[in-house]
Amino acid sequence: MNTLLQHRSIRKYQNKPITKELINRVLEAGTRASTTGNMQVYSIINTTDSEIKKALAPAHFNQPMVTQAPNILTFCADFNRFNKWCNQRKAEPGYDNFLSFITAAIDALLVAQNVTIAAESEGLGICYLGTTTYNAKEIIETLKLPKGVVPITTITVGWPDESPGLTDRLPLGAVVHNNTYCDYTPEMIDKLYKEKESLAENIQFIKENNKKTLAQVFTDVRYKKADNEFFSEKFLNVLKEQGFL
Amino acid sequence: MNTLLQHRSIRKYQNKPITKELINRVLEAGTRASTTGNMQVYSIINTTDSEIKKALAPAHFNQPMVTQAPNILTFCADFNRFNKWCNQRKAEPGYDNFLSFITAAIDALLVAQNVTIAAESEGLGICYLGTTTYNAKEIIETLKLPKGVVPITTITVGWPDESPGLTDRLPLGAVVHNNTYCDYTPEMIDKLYKEKESLAENIQFIKENNKKTLAQVFTDVRYKKADNEFFSEKFLNVLKEQGFL
Repeated sequence: MNTLLQHRSIRKYQNKPITKELINRVLEAGTRASTTGNMQVYSIINTTDSEIKKALAPAHFNQPMVTQAPNILTFCADFNRFNKWCNQRKAEPGYDNFLSFITAAIDALLVAQNVTIAAESEGLGICYLGTTTYNAKEIIETLKLPKGVVPITTITVGWPDESPGLTDRLPLGAVVHNNTYCDYTPEMIDKLYKEKESLAENIQFIKENNKKTLAQVFTDVRYKKADNEFFSEKFLNVLKEQGFL
Repeated sequence: MNTLLQHRSIRKYQNKPITKELINRVLEAGTRASTTGNMQVYSIINTTDSEIKKALAPAHFNQPMVTQAPNILTFCADFNRFNKWCNQRKAEPGYDNFLSFITAAIDALLVAQNVTIAAESEGLGICYLGTTTYNAKEIIETLKLPKGVVPITTITVGWPDESPGLTDRLPLGAVVHNNTYCDYTPEMIDKLYKEKESLAENIQFIKENNKKTLAQVFTDVRYKKADNEFFSEKFLNVLKEQGFL
């Protein structure tokens, strides 16, 4: 429980490798996560080679963690292994569709979060890279992912070389609904976002970006409609090419 | 770490509620999970009302845990709250697209796994319901989810009334690749699935289902092509109706 409550994203790492024994222990704990029908339709690419990390970096917008962290773990929805097994066992796989992609993506994400918690409980730090779905196409090329395999998230892992504070969260009542969904009134929105909007770092963030509101920093700078539409198209194409649409 | 390694799905629960204080502690730990840009684009519906649990049950193929567990937690990809906030802050949200759905689904799933670990570390048991994506449409109706909200997974939570053994997993080498993807040869598939195929319970499973191989139990009985295609179409329609396609 304490491990969960103390989670911070770690973006600076010591120049110190993770032993094979330790990373395997962490990955093994990952595989204890629930998986649909115990099919384990995911794969984890554990990249430690510095040339391959360099090749991966542009897909992650050259965030420095990608080349500095000792281990880059790419979590993939993977029906390739399962399909091969079916074909070798006189069974006709029917997993070339969107539902199967979602099933495999769920498997991969539960494993990723288990790996995160296992790593943190061992004193390691991690950072999720949301760029994985933006540039899945380039990651597929670099990591040589075959048909049936789609990268869904990535974490960088290493020994922390920074100790950032906890990031803010909305009050619990903002994200939890009792029994059924209670839709938000304008007054509720004002109340639930009040604390976040009053934080000094967020006020600074608005100024730096020359915007009028914190929400505009998201819509106009960080997560823009045109970018979202561009990367939506790109990711849907990846699903087609990898055999899920 | 021990909590992770001891995970089992719990399908039988004692007739004993979870206190509000405890479930809130577990949910609070859930919200410490990483979230894209700290947007927290997810919601959790905590259903304890027995009438609503009864209404949810058919969407989950009437699995008895849905009415027997004290708490049913439905994890949703949710841009509705964020969009409302943007609109109230003179910001134009651009999140009505597939990438935004995936981003929000990732957020929701990392929270779900954090909640799972938090619950288990408090002695509670959980079971994931994969039926959530099959029957998202019916769940949306029952839980009154507005546009911008899509259920992605569900866990039943309660005090365990059974103590099942660990389920088998493929050897770690089956799911982990070093540096880049190492595609499977027929010999590797035989070797990696050998232990699973030799388990007494799996041999029994083949017999019960009157099949020749374990893989056929998956393709012909449990996860059939026709069903996958039907539910793919249905889920893609949900994404359209909820404003993500």
